[in-house]
Amino acid sequence: MANISKKVSWSGRGDDRGERTPLLNGAEDGKYNRHLSGGGIFNIGRLSTVDLEEITPEEDIVRSRPKEIPHNAKLLSLKYESLDYDNSENQLFLEEERRMSHMGFRCLETRRWVICGLIGFLTGLIACLIDIAVEKLAGYKYSAVKQNIEKFTEFGGLSISLILWAVLNSAFVMVGAIAVAFFEPIAAGSGIPQIKCYLNGVKIPRVVRLKTLAIKVFGVICSVAGGLAVGKEGPMIHSGAVVAAGVSQGRSTSLKKDFKIFEYFRRDTEKRDFVSAGAAAGVSAAFGAPVGGVLFSLEEGASFWNQMLTWRIFFASMISTFTLNFFLSIYHGKPGELSSPGLINFGRFDGDVSSYIPFESFLFFSFHFPGGVLGALFNVINYWLTIFRIRYIHRPCLQVMEAMLVAAVTATVSFAMIYFSNDCQPLGQDNTEEYSLQLFCADGEYNSMATAFFNTPERSVRSLFHNPPGSYNPLTLGVFTLAYFVLAVWTYGLTVSAGVFIPSLLIGAAWGRLFGILLSTITSSQSIWADPGKYALIGAAAQLGGIVRMTLSLTVILVEATGSVTYGFPIMLVLITAKIVGDYFIEGLYDVHIKLQSVPFLHWEAPPTSHWLTAREVMSSPVTCFNRVEKVGRIVDVLSNTSTNHNGFPVVAHTTENDEPGKICGLILRSQLIVLLKHKVFVERASSRLSHRKLQLKDFRDAYPRFPPIQSIHVSQDERECMMDLTEFMNPTPYTVPQETSLPRVFKLFRALGLRHLVVVDNENGVVGLVTRKDLARYHLGKDGLEELHLAQT
Amino acid sequence: MANISKKVSWSGRGDDRGERTPLLNGAEDGKYNRHLSGGGIFNIGRLSTVDLEEITPEEDIVRSRPKEIPHNAKLLSLKYESLDYDNSENQLFLEEERRMSHMGFRCLETRRWVICGLIGFLTGLIACLIDIAVEKLAGYKYSAVKQNIEKFTEFGGLSISLILWAVLNSAFVMVGAIAVAFFEPIAAGSGIPQIKCYLNGVKIPRVVRLKTLAIKVFGVICSVAGGLAVGKEGPMIHSGAVVAAGVSQGRSTSLKKDFKIFEYFRRDTEKRDFVSAGAAAGVSAAFGAPVGGVLFSLEEGASFWNQMLTWRIFFASMISTFTLNFFLSIYHGKPGELSSPGLINFGRFDGDVSSYIPFESFLFFSFHFPGGVLGALFNVINYWLTIFRIRYIHRPCLQVMEAMLVAAVTATVSFAMIYFSNDCQPLGQDNTEEYSLQLFCADGEYNSMATAFFNTPERSVRSLFHNPPGSYNPLTLGVFTLAYFVLAVWTYGLTVSAGVFIPSLLIGAAWGRLFGILLSTITSSQSIWADPGKYALIGAAAQLGGIVRMTLSLTVILVEATGSVTYGFPIMLVLITAKIVGDYFIEGLYDVHIKLQSVPFLHWEAPPTSHWLTAREVMSSPVTCFNRVEKVGRIVDVLSNTSTNHNGFPVVAHTTENDEPGKICGLILRSQLIVLLKHKVFVERASSRLSHRKLQLKDFRDAYPRFPPIQSIHVSQDERECMMDLTEFMNPTPYTVPQETSLPRVFKLFRALGLRHLVVVDNENGVVGLVTRKDLARYHLGKDGLEELHLAQT
Repeated sequence: MANISKKVSWSGRGDDRGERTPLLNGAEDGKYNRHLSGGGIFNIGRLSTVDLEEITPEEDIVRSRPKEIPHNAKLLSLKYESLDYDNSENQLFLEEERRMSHMGFRCLETRRWVICGLIGFLTGLIACLIDIAVEKLAGYKYSAVKQNIEKFTEFGGLSISLILWAVLNSAFVMVGAIAVAFFEPIAAGSGIPQIKCYLNGVKIPRVVRLKTLAIKVFGVICSVAGGLAVGKEGPMIHSGAVVAAGVSQGRSTSLKKDFKIFEYFRRDTEKRDFVSAGAAAGVSAAFGAPVGGVLFSLEEGASFWNQMLTWRIFFASMISTFTLNFFLSIYHGKPGELSSPGLINFGRFDGDVSSYIPFESFLFFSFHFPGGVLGALFNVINYWLTIFRIRYIHRPCLQVMEAMLVAAVTATVSFAMIYFSNDCQPLGQDNTEEYSLQLFCADGEYNSMATAFFNTPERSVRSLFHNPPGSYNPLTLGVFTLAYFVLAVWTYGLTVSAGVFIPSLLIGAAWGRLFGILLSTITSSQSIWADPGKYALIGAAAQLGGIVRMTLSLTVILVEATGSVTYGFPIMLVLITAKIVGDYFIEGLYDVHIKLQSVPFLHWEAPPTSHWLTAREVMSSPVTCFNRVEKVGRIVDVLSNTSTNHNGFPVVAHTTENDEPGKICGLILRSQLIVLLKHKVFVERASSRLSHRKLQLKDFRDAYPRFPPIQSIHVSQDERECMMDLTEFMNPTPYTVPQETSLPRVFKLFRALGLRHLVVVDNENGVVGLVTRKDLARYHLGKDGLEELHLAQT
Repeated sequence: MANISKKVSWSGRGDDRGERTPLLNGAEDGKYNRHLSGGGIFNIGRLSTVDLEEITPEEDIVRSRPKEIPHNAKLLSLKYESLDYDNSENQLFLEEERRMSHMGFRCLETRRWVICGLIGFLTGLIACLIDIAVEKLAGYKYSAVKQNIEKFTEFGGLSISLILWAVLNSAFVMVGAIAVAFFEPIAAGSGIPQIKCYLNGVKIPRVVRLKTLAIKVFGVICSVAGGLAVGKEGPMIHSGAVVAAGVSQGRSTSLKKDFKIFEYFRRDTEKRDFVSAGAAAGVSAAFGAPVGGVLFSLEEGASFWNQMLTWRIFFASMISTFTLNFFLSIYHGKPGELSSPGLINFGRFDGDVSSYIPFESFLFFSFHFPGGVLGALFNVINYWLTIFRIRYIHRPCLQVMEAMLVAAVTATVSFAMIYFSNDCQPLGQDNTEEYSLQLFCADGEYNSMATAFFNTPERSVRSLFHNPPGSYNPLTLGVFTLAYFVLAVWTYGLTVSAGVFIPSLLIGAAWGRLFGILLSTITSSQSIWADPGKYALIGAAAQLGGIVRMTLSLTVILVEATGSVTYGFPIMLVLITAKIVGDYFIEGLYDVHIKLQSVPFLHWEAPPTSHWLTAREVMSSPVTCFNRVEKVGRIVDVLSNTSTNHNGFPVVAHTTENDEPGKICGLILRSQLIVLLKHKVFVERASSRLSHRKLQLKDFRDAYPRFPPIQSIHVSQDERECMMDLTEFMNPTPYTVPQETSLPRVFKLFRALGLRHLVVVDNENGVVGLVTRKDLARYHLGKDGLEELHLAQT
């Protein structure tokens, strides 16, 4: 049966603020932390100091282990706060809702639609900006290098061209990397893991701020223009999410500007809905795939499916694609031609290529194996590389230097490839390559390696899909696949904004096309096998599936981006099977990085073999409770001591002197208490009530989402003796479960409702424990059955 | 604020078996019931006799009302049972799950995939069968009539042709209607409302039986071949669902055949997942829209979103389209040409038509108004027609006669239209009309009205979308729109298997094209306005949105069916706005019919103005509870008395003699008790335990889903004195809420987890009430705020 590692019971395990760091000593911690806030996926806030004296012998046992674990994939961090998808239905809230007329609700609903429209519009604009900027910059760069090459081809001295190219690349990348490493490390990477976490309910610090957006957009322009093996889609998704978080709140905390609109939406529940819409709009703009965008949001975040919400998400996606196409059509001088898809245009598979015979389906199907294996290899190498980076490359300047090095190496490798390949192809009439290089080819011919390397990655993918048969020779493609694979692995995880979609597609398209070419050589039948483009498409799908493993939305995105419903079936089949093959070795790339950051990520279901665990075993116990009317001093003390709370406190009817636990009558959040303390909602005696309400829901909304720390609130000694009546502010009907509830059942409730705290009660409704995200995320299915992750304050 | 009608409190309102019928007397009831089991949407079981003496004065007040309400749209029926999406996690279940190894769970998962593959395959085959049968039969019919017409055109005597056509139509329809009316009335209509209800969690009797499938398939072939204004998509969706329910259970109760496989899936939770997949496969086969199918299932049923489930649904959809295409390609003699989409082929919008200018977007957008208004008109007329049918056309033979009449009238109207129109068009080179009629036109010309009427509806839609400009004259189209609108309204609700998708599309396409023609006449610019086909497409979308109102999946279905991603944005915009316009007048067609059947359908959210209602006010109280160890006699008595139970019973620790309610310690279902009684799991004294387990989970699974009625179980007088220990069989951790919980919160919990019973407890965990589906479905938002529906045993 299941094999579980010995469980260490903490006296007061935190939901968000953990208590001690048993696994890493201070120094190490600092180093890890430094890296993570630099080149890693997530940025981690300030390190809480570790009180070594407090570590009990029991914890010491655990402490000795991590020496063997040089990374933190086996840990679960306690420092991430959770989002609260469950409304705190306290009296203030209920009164507001009850006051609101039917008309009022209609207005709210209209406002939601307006916001979604705005999100779509702004996301589309940003996509447009990125696209145009990249095209311009890359255009300048390639023109300059091309001229230089052409100049030196005849006279010799191409090494100067190489240096020019490498310097240009490095310069672009340096600017981007500096912005990311020094100003907003969270903007590094593709942003998809962060958005996945956010939609899952984990609060990643600073992930949806305006500054992040600015750096992200700037960074991705630099890295794509800098010729790295990256794409601009992941950043688009992140950008959409930030736009959504900003617009829906009607203010910017960074700019200190409050428009006083959309105040109703200032809570996690609403914000998260809008962020889903923003992510979808991002996907939609990046791939021209509105339906794919909706499915992406749903696949990642929607345990909370709701028809109206989905329509709004779809609306935002549609507006986003529409806006992008509209402005791009104006930019390209053909205003109103709205039929072009998103940022990425893979072209249509029409005519002969638009069908395939059943035998080909089997060939297509066989692609899952190389796709899965190569994908797993990609992830494994990147995993070790990331650990290496965590250990050794954790200073911003080192990170910038690494990024510049990669840029220079990319240019060098590309140059060497182009230089040494002698694969000349005749220039066609309808030549789609904008930067075709003649190099050593005869007049009227161009170097085919250059179409793959001397180009932005999207254009290369399109060439691989659509160039007529015979455009590439097999050796060229083989070498290209290998070189690009290595470059892409090395690039992902650098301190630059960059996506991994397009590089994955490119690798897959290259070996897929190679396969197609070899096949047509072997069979030498020219009729139906003639076009290796379709093999490139299926190869791209297989490779993408092997690396990122998001099957459903990926299928739809690929189908929408290529406009070929015909290939839907083989694409899906290959994606699913590539996922299965890849999962055998290692998780998907995003999940690997999420795990490396020890994020308490909740999957869709509890591990299947966890039925024998009950709420009693998973819950945190004992729990700090408050009385309905509590002394201010005690509240301040409890909030100040970060080691004994879960950011949420059950409110009990009366603390009995004997051992019996108090009966649950509500739940109050740390953030609510902070606002209460700040506004000093105190009464002098327990019996006296507030004569008039001092606090409105507005006060809580104004403080959202950056509640002040407890240290900033001054409470005098006299005030400490006052009482605070929590009745009006607590959620009077928190969800509860009995102690015997099985883990899958707890998990289902928690996940379906998007909870943050779930109170465990005994037969008499007495509070015996609290289940939080970490308690559930701890259990996962390892090779030998159920495993339990260690909790740490990393 | 909200205005709620006076609430009538029942002493024991039933979840599934209600107690009294206060609203209709026996005779009326019988009549209504007769109709409903005949021509209506749902078939209703045997009528429980109404005990008039039991009606209290209070109820009498209510009783006097329905005289003014000749239908039951304001009632909520108590006779529908609910599905239980929440697993009963009793000891038997937990032990089984705990015994199962990790490998075991993998096998289960694999089996789920296999089942979904089978569902897709069989659904595809059925779609193939329907398609070929309809094509053959319609082909014979039209050829016969065409020959006849051609014969008589020159010599006069066309009335004989008319009679031939009318007789052929009526004959086909008669056969179909007889099968439906006499053998399986539930197979009438499109089947989509039934599947909507099933996915929503309402058990519609006989809806997923093999017999229903057979009659449905046979019926739809007859009605389409019979020339009615119907489509074959609704029935396809229903067929897919039945296939899924059958395959996933590994047995057929109708055929008394148990394959002893897939026994694990014999419970509501699993079955419902598969039915979702089946419905999606049906959509996918009908429209060639796999993604649309997935979204349809999710939109209708998936409060229980789960990533793996969605993948399986997608897989089933893909397999279904693939199978259909594969076999159709063989049938059409081009094996392996898999690029053709589903049953319906609207053709691609390529070339010039594949783009539109922004100004056109505004024109497209304006389509929502006629779409919404015409849609609402359609629904209103159909609503009154349905009420008329409920009152007067409730005998099977009358229903068959009505269907035949409609068929004859359809033929007559079509004939008259063709006869009196003198709209001759030249026969093109690439003439796509298979049954083009020359009639009185010159040689080399054909009658354009005949392309619209002398054809299956799908072909007519395709002609309207794609025929070159100038194929129709405006008058022809105007008259056609009007005639077809009337015919379609009249046809929907007949006792035949028939969908409303295609007729809606056809009406919309006709007036859309009409608009396009008029526009190009006015502007007389030939360049971009030239093609009225795109207006036909948008018109079709607007009309469909106005009638059925399923926005998201419809958009995707239309986009996939026409293969034009370009029009996604205007289609979506028009669908959403047409829905808003239509909703102003009346609900969508399916919802109208669901309401007329008083189905307790749960929408996505509680009405917004219902925050002031709490669990205390909505719950049913008092509740019949059982003790942990209960006397057999009492159980039999309680189960026999259908007026006092909700098909589920809280189990309490001990019934206290005083007024205090017993503390909740579990929940047991009626079906479980029936199985226990049947197997006589009795002990002699309360203290004695069962020495060895007599019952396995298998026994419950074998009895599922047709549990025997309590009357069929004989319990002797001695046995009545025995005790039954419920501990092992009850669900020990039912979900509970406190009495103060607001209705939206209860609703959310109920809907998100797919519950059937939700226990309401007091501070001490004592049982004070039970919330069931009816308690939540009762409240809905009317014109004047919150309204409460009446409960009745109709």
